[in-house]
Amino acid sequence: MQRAIQLAKRGRYTTSPNPVVGCVLVSKDKIVGEGWHIRAGEGHAEVNALSMAGSLAKGCTAYVTLEPCSHYGRTPPCAKALIEAGVSQVVVAMQDPNPQVSGRGIQLLEDAGIATRVGLLEQSAQQINIGFVKRMRTGFPRVICKLASSLDGKIAMHSGESKWITSPESRQDVQRLRALSCAIISGADTVLVDDARLTVRYEQLGFAMQDIEPEKLRQPTRIVIDSQYRLHPQLALFKEISNIIVVRNLQMLQREPNWPDHVQVINIAGSSQHPGKVDLNSLLSELAKSGVNNLLVEAGGNLTSAFIQAQRVDELWLYQAPKLMGAQALSLLALPGVETLAQAPQLSIIDIRKIGPDIRIRANFN
Amino acid sequence: MQRAIQLAKRGRYTTSPNPVVGCVLVSKDKIVGEGWHIRAGEGHAEVNALSMAGSLAKGCTAYVTLEPCSHYGRTPPCAKALIEAGVSQVVVAMQDPNPQVSGRGIQLLEDAGIATRVGLLEQSAQQINIGFVKRMRTGFPRVICKLASSLDGKIAMHSGESKWITSPESRQDVQRLRALSCAIISGADTVLVDDARLTVRYEQLGFAMQDIEPEKLRQPTRIVIDSQYRLHPQLALFKEISNIIVVRNLQMLQREPNWPDHVQVINIAGSSQHPGKVDLNSLLSELAKSGVNNLLVEAGGNLTSAFIQAQRVDELWLYQAPKLMGAQALSLLALPGVETLAQAPQLSIIDIRKIGPDIRIRANFN
Repeated sequence: MQRAIQLAKRGRYTTSPNPVVGCVLVSKDKIVGEGWHIRAGEGHAEVNALSMAGSLAKGCTAYVTLEPCSHYGRTPPCAKALIEAGVSQVVVAMQDPNPQVSGRGIQLLEDAGIATRVGLLEQSAQQINIGFVKRMRTGFPRVICKLASSLDGKIAMHSGESKWITSPESRQDVQRLRALSCAIISGADTVLVDDARLTVRYEQLGFAMQDIEPEKLRQPTRIVIDSQYRLHPQLALFKEISNIIVVRNLQMLQREPNWPDHVQVINIAGSSQHPGKVDLNSLLSELAKSGVNNLLVEAGGNLTSAFIQAQRVDELWLYQAPKLMGAQALSLLALPGVETLAQAPQLSIIDIRKIGPDIRIRANFN
Repeated sequence: MQRAIQLAKRGRYTTSPNPVVGCVLVSKDKIVGEGWHIRAGEGHAEVNALSMAGSLAKGCTAYVTLEPCSHYGRTPPCAKALIEAGVSQVVVAMQDPNPQVSGRGIQLLEDAGIATRVGLLEQSAQQINIGFVKRMRTGFPRVICKLASSLDGKIAMHSGESKWITSPESRQDVQRLRALSCAIISGADTVLVDDARLTVRYEQLGFAMQDIEPEKLRQPTRIVIDSQYRLHPQLALFKEISNIIVVRNLQMLQREPNWPDHVQVINIAGSSQHPGKVDLNSLLSELAKSGVNNLLVEAGGNLTSAFIQAQRVDELWLYQAPKLMGAQALSLLALPGVETLAQAPQLSIIDIRKIGPDIRIRANFN
């Protein structure tokens, strides 16, 4: 199963909106087939492993990181494929987290007389699909906020000067984080100020990409909240041909500019608490429905604050440059309404490390 | 020599203003004596090792972390003691950093026909006496600033609420940092707001104290800058009977309150650049003359800023609590006059680690 989990991880930059899955077929203590899911619409892990094993699959034990599917989707059900190949035993790390289908694949296998076991390395299996599992169970994507500041929590000088506070090494690390995300969300402000493209420069990623055929790589969907219609097709963002979603506030609709084909516009209910703002719960629920497992928030202090204060952020990635910018400089996060220490959002540190000259802090929201 | 350095470190909470020193005597591949310097005015490392070895010292090799002294101070010169004991070879990790006497101890030994070698593990030997070495070479103490904030660089809510931002574990870690310091400096503001004692609670330190007899422990000298005569003998600070220095501005002298005996008042020149403030270079030079090797700045954002902007801080210890306090909260450091990124003080990260739920960042000023 350890091997199957390793194989599954090879899909982490390509499978979304599908989960990553790995499968190992073992016959007489020997691996006779292995496979992993590469991309939605292409072969599932089990099918790839069975195709490698050929007739050797008969009588073998299959180790698979996620319950085999039971339904006809873009590919035939894997449970059926395992049965037809004559596999004699199936070990599953975790059940399908989708409450609609959970347990059905296992049922199919058992009905066919195949011994099944569930729960081996279950925690690891959950971890590699943490966003997918969250989306299936809650109807919301897993949300990571990325922020960058000086050691004293500042993001720009009083004058607005802010470019390159963190190092090239940190910016490359952010590229990897983007590559792991199904979608990246930002605000019109940030896009306009930085003329940001919000794409992954895969050519800068080096080692992390070694297992992946370049043509399978996908750009995360780029999402920009623009209630005030400030975006226009001439921005660098739109020059990159990959999916973009422009989010409008249903209460403030105007005429759309003439967008290129890769741009989609969605209208989201306005917030009842924050007039003029989009309701973030509605937006996140909509994004989950469209298959976003892992959402990266790369926005300014106001939008990031709004996600945090809506209690919709799972994890913070904070890059700190070894600088001190002083009290006149602009603070990292607005957090309006936080007046007492008891109201201050609390986190738990998961990981701290040096990235080049900077510090990267990962923390969960409590 | 490794062993001698280990022994030297046992003195790190007690020897100041003296350096830590360790000595190991080896005869026919066997350790026949070892010693370390415990406290100023008491036996030096070499003398303690010789006394353990007794007649076995004759013909042995002495490993000593710092050049043996050559002068009559509170104890007779160690170089002479080594000669009289009949030691045949002396290996020294580093020369005395005091330019007035450097090399004299080695000269004495060589004049007596003893083979000497200098430079074994020199870097480690410098490191264990980093404050002493700096004071001897530059006439200034080594300065560490301790700061504590939230992840977004805030130290108090807008209302002033600030108690216990960091955890008990971090506060205990600060106790250890205090214990390693010759003196702790703060401003009248901080002392008044927190009614701070600025003492080491040795009973909370546990393991770090295991090699030390409790009666040898000393409290760091507590120094408070109080140009406006706001301190008074009723404060908790003065109830603790250990050395306190109250710093006055020579340009603004007034009548002193009736201080208890453990309080000393010193008058320092006013700053020409910052009217009403004490000149920090004069103060630090004065403190170095009185034997302060390691000075800990535990002050508010203004005084800490002044030390940083005077470029007199060697190292920052920043404790970050896993909280986000928002833009309305009070920022960590004032740093007046820092208007551009190029003016922002730059540091290099030395060490990052978790202390309880918090993060501790150590960084050098570039």
